[in-house]
Parts: sequence; C-alpha cells; structure tokens
Amino acid sequence: MSKVTIKTLAEQLGLSIATVSKALKDSYEISADTKKRVLDLASELSYIPNPYASSLRKQKSGTIAIVLPEVADNFFSLAINGIQSIAIQRNYHALIYLSHDNAEMEKSILRQCSSGRVDGVLISVSNETTDAAHIEKLKEENIPVVFFDRDIENYVAPKVLTNDRQCGYMAASHLIERGCRHPVFLSISGSLSICNKRSAGFTAALTEAQLYSSDHHFSIDCSSHNGSDITLQIQDFLGRQPAVDGIVASGEKIAIHTYLACLNQKISIPGDIKIIAFSTLETAPILNPSLTTIAQPAFEIGSSAAEILFNLIDKRKNVVPADHTITLPSVLIERRSTSVSL
Amino acid sequence: MSKVTIKTLAEQLGLSIATVSKALKDSYEISADTKKRVLDLASELSYIPNPYASSLRKQKSGTIAIVLPEVADNFFSLAINGIQSIAIQRNYHALIYLSHDNAEMEKSILRQCSSGRVDGVLISVSNETTDAAHIEKLKEENIPVVFFDRDIENYVAPKVLTNDRQCGYMAASHLIERGCRHPVFLSISGSLSICNKRSAGFTAALTEAQLYSSDHHFSIDCSSHNGSDITLQIQDFLGRQPAVDGIVASGEKIAIHTYLACLNQKISIPGDIKIIAFSTLETAPILNPSLTTIAQPAFEIGSSAAEILFNLIDKRKNVVPADHTITLPSVLIERRSTSVSL
Repeated sequence: MSKVTIKTLAEQLGLSIATVSKALKDSYEISADTKKRVLDLASELSYIPNPYASSLRKQKSGTIAIVLPEVADNFFSLAINGIQSIAIQRNYHALIYLSHDNAEMEKSILRQCSSGRVDGVLISVSNETTDAAHIEKLKEENIPVVFFDRDIENYVAPKVLTNDRQCGYMAASHLIERGCRHPVFLSISGSLSICNKRSAGFTAALTEAQLYSSDHHFSIDCSSHNGSDITLQIQDFLGRQPAVDGIVASGEKIAIHTYLACLNQKISIPGDIKIIAFSTLETAPILNPSLTTIAQPAFEIGSSAAEILFNLIDKRKNVVPADHTITLPSVLIERRSTSVSL
Repeated sequence: MSKVTIKTLAEQLGLSIATVSKALKDSYEISADTKKRVLDLASELSYIPNPYASSLRKQKSGTIAIVLPEVADNFFSLAINGIQSIAIQRNYHALIYLSHDNAEMEKSILRQCSSGRVDGVLISVSNETTDAAHIEKLKEENIPVVFFDRDIENYVAPKVLTNDRQCGYMAASHLIERGCRHPVFLSISGSLSICNKRSAGFTAALTEAQLYSSDHHFSIDCSSHNGSDITLQIQDFLGRQPAVDGIVASGEKIAIHTYLACLNQKISIPGDIKIIAFSTLETAPILNPSLTTIAQPAFEIGSSAAEILFNLIDKRKNVVPADHTITLPSVLIERRSTSVSL
C-alpha cells in the first residue's frame, strides 16, 4: 500500500486538501462534523503527519525562539522545561537565545528572529529594556510575541506573569511579623517591571507598619560573570548598613550571594539577618539555614506562555485578545532563614 | 569621503577582493607580508568591517549552535557563558538547543542545524547517544562540530574534556582516606563517556584499596521533570544498602537529590554518609553541610571549544587536527560533607 498523505484523505472524502489540512490542525474554520470525518478516516488509514512537509507547505520554520537573560537560574530553566513540554507536543523545536541582560543584544537577537527564521517568540526581557520598538517590528512581520515573567510595563501584549506586587507585600509582611525593624529590598539593578512591582508591594507593607524610609532599597549589579564581584557588593552594603535585620532578595542570584556574604562576614542567618527570596532554587531546603522562598510557578508560566504562542501561530486570534494577561500566583514557603528561634 | 569597503582597499593595493578579505580574516592562505600591507591600509583608512554584509558574502549565517542535554545545571550554564564570551567577540549569535538527554531529539536537532542555518556546532551529547552518524552527516555538509565535556568515546573529532578518569580515582581515594569502607558511585543512567571514565577511576581506587565489589555502582534515572522522583530513587537505594558510608555523585543533580534524600531519611552527612560530587554548584559552600566537590573548569571548557570551532569555521584547518583533544583538569575542593569530625 502506498503512503497515506493528506491528498489520499482529501480524495477519499471529496474535500479539498486545504480543508483536510485545517481539520487535522483543529482549525476553528472547520466544522466539528467535517473534523470528525477527517479524523476518523486518518485513524482508519493510519495516516502519519509529516512535520517537515507540513512546515514547508505552510512556509513555517517549525521553530520558536525563547529569548531570555540567562539560563544560570532555576526559574528560567524550569520555565524552559515548561515551554518545551508544549513545543514537543507540537513537533516544534525551541531555540534559546540569551540577551545577558543587554538591551542591544536583545534587539540584535530579535532582528535574527525575523524573516521566517522562527514562527513566534517567547520573551522575558533584559533588565535594560524599556521600550518595545524591537518587538513592534516583529509583530509587523506577523511574528507573534508572548511575554513571560519579565514584561515591558504598560506595553499591550499577551503576557504570562505572576502576582509580583502582592508577593512583595507578602515577603515584607513576613519579615515584619518575624520581628524585623529594618528590612531591605535587594534587587538586581536595571528597570525591570517585576522588580518594580515587588518593590512597590514591599514599600506598601513597610509604610503600613510605619517602618518605611528610602534606605530600604538597594540595587546590586549582577552583570559580572565573576560571582565573587556580586558577593563583595553585598558584603560592602551590609558593612555600611549595620541596622539591616532582614532582606527580601528579588532573585536566586541575590539570595545565594547574600548567603555567601554572610558566611564570609560571620553574620548569622536568621540570628542577625532574616532572609526571604523570590526563588525556585532546588537547593532551598538543604541550604544552611534552609531558605524561606516566594516560589513562582515557573514551569506553568512557561507552558502557559507557549500555549498562547501556539494559538497565535495557528492564527486562532479570536481566542487570544491583544491584552491577554494570565497571572499565576506564587506561594510563600517558610523555612529556617526567617525563623525566630535559632 | 565615501565609505571604505574591501573593494576600496583592494583597488588601492592592486590586490583582488578575495585576497584582501582573506588577509583581513588572518587566513593561512595569505602571506605575512600581504597581510601587513592590507592591515596597515585598513587601519590608515579606518576601515570598519560590516559583519552582516560579510556574512552574506560568505554565505554564512553568523550563528553557531550549542546542543546540550539541559540548562538546569551550573556546569552547562557556565559552559554556555564561556562559549558566549568568544561568540560575542566574533559577532556571532549562539543558539541553544536542548536534547533533554534524548538521542532522537538530538538527531532531529542536528538535522535542523544543516542547510546553512548555522556555521558550526558545539555539542555535549545526550546520555543515550552511542553512535555518531548524525554528526558525520553534518561534517559531510562542511559544518564543523566540536565536542565539549560529553563526547562519544572512540569517535575521532575535536574535543574539549576534563580529566574524568583521574578525578574518579581522586574522589574515591578521598572517601577512602576519610574512612569510608563502602563508598558507591551514583551516576545518571545511560551510556555517557564521562560517567564511564569517572566510574573506571573510582573502580581502580577501590580495587587498589581491596574494597571493590560490584555493588559499588548504582544508576539513577534523572529524566523526570519532577525532582521528587529522583529523590525517591535515592532514598530507596539507601534503604536497601544500609552499609553505604560514602557517595561519589557524578553530577550536581545527583548531589542535590542525595542531600534531599538524606534530609528526608534523617541520615547525617558526613556522620553516616560522606559525599563528594562532580559539580560546579554555586551553592556548594552554603549547603548544610557544605559540599566537597570535584570542580570542572566549565567556563574554560566552553570558551576553548568555541575557539576551536571558530578556527574550523575560518577553515584554519592546519591548526586543528581531526583528533585535537584538549583536557582541562578539574580540582578537588574539600568541604564539610567529607570531614571526619562532625
């Protein structure tokens, strides 16, 4: 028996090849009845789709791009796993491009993503990115873009985020409850929307508790490949601010280097300083002491963003409004780094 | 003054455009004298190379592929940083493709890398990969391939590795010195050359100390996205083997889940079991207890592999023999997880 193709199915059903193809892709343009007829025959004749032929016919690359600052971070590696879990089902490859938190590099990457190289882009922007001209350009070429985790505030686009402001409030309240009178918010430097939101929540909680003053925020430059630079910045900060008794670390890198700084300076956690971190760090339970975290649903943020992107690639625009934003909540997991007794 | 191009230089020097272009790229085909004349004039006229035009002319993509099993691992993320440090200097983009330790996916990725999509490939193979047909295919298309860290044993190709066998010996000897009588080698399942080499070194040390028997090796299936599956396998193993008093973890994932298993089962590290891990884990000094590691020069492995690849892309084949292997040594960093006193 010769190979069963879409043409075979179309001929036997008396339908056009385009209709059969759309039915196999579960397109909204095709009626449920027609879809059933096509799928029944495809199953009967053991039709196997050819992803390469299909990609050629559609002028699709069969590829999506994931653009993100770095991969040396559990959040991003879990999000990538979430994205891949969906891409694999769709027979798509995912290319990972790293912006290294550099806005120019991010622009250059998005230029590479145009011209049919990829069918869509998932992006978590660099901490330098403030305008969206490079994203607009891709959209003009009909390449859909979905933001995950790090977005450009006030820019209208499909986004999958977490409840950062609320979690900043939650983190600060937790430290205040545990007796901290001078907690600080340590963020990576730049203009990241997620840091701004977390910081706003933190400020709100301190203001309510009448503890707020402007020295409760500090930025760390995390751009160095040499980790000890980051540790030294934090040691230096703690040396200048002996009143600090609590830290909200806005990411896992800040948390790790705060631990290393405290180890070097013989500062006791949680005795002298209590620490809570925005982090999905796998080692949180086995750190010394175990680390209290605000854990983001990283895998689900990735998989949801990928699902939206594939809906856009399939042109199911009716199910994805331009301002579609999904917010998946993070949870506070209490461990020893914020405990009251040693 | 009009823009200075390669044509300008060629006309003024009375050379062909091809010769000037090769001279600017430091090609071995051009004499030192000619190179000097070209570079002197280029400098005098402030010639600025246009990477995009150059890439078009050469039919190059300006892109290399990094193919590796996963990014949720400090070794790989550091190696990626090393690769990028070289790629950036060359005005190249690096695409990251994840094989998820799946040989079929790795083959499919390498198919995508052909047809001019990338100019070269850096690969750390999946733990299922045993033959090199997919790599041979790329080489037939004149796309150079360089292995880093995880290679295919006995397959002749440029490689940047570390001294895995020696380190396996060193790790086992360290545990024996610290009093372990029943150390085991915990590896990720599969047929990885690096695990085989580490394991061979481990076996040699135990044999010398007359401690060897076949139950000193155990494989863990690390393919699950759900970390607790891995922890449970290790708990189960430790429950069945109460004599185990030392563990050589062949990677950071195994080390983390051994710590989690010991935490769950109230097994004391280093009191009941001492642990040493092949790992560049940033959190090693702040784990409870701090983790003794065999630390690989991950960044340097990545940057060296990238340098070799660019030499091959530039067709400086005379400086890269087909069996070119660089071995960068790892170092043992002793911490509390293998200490004798508590």
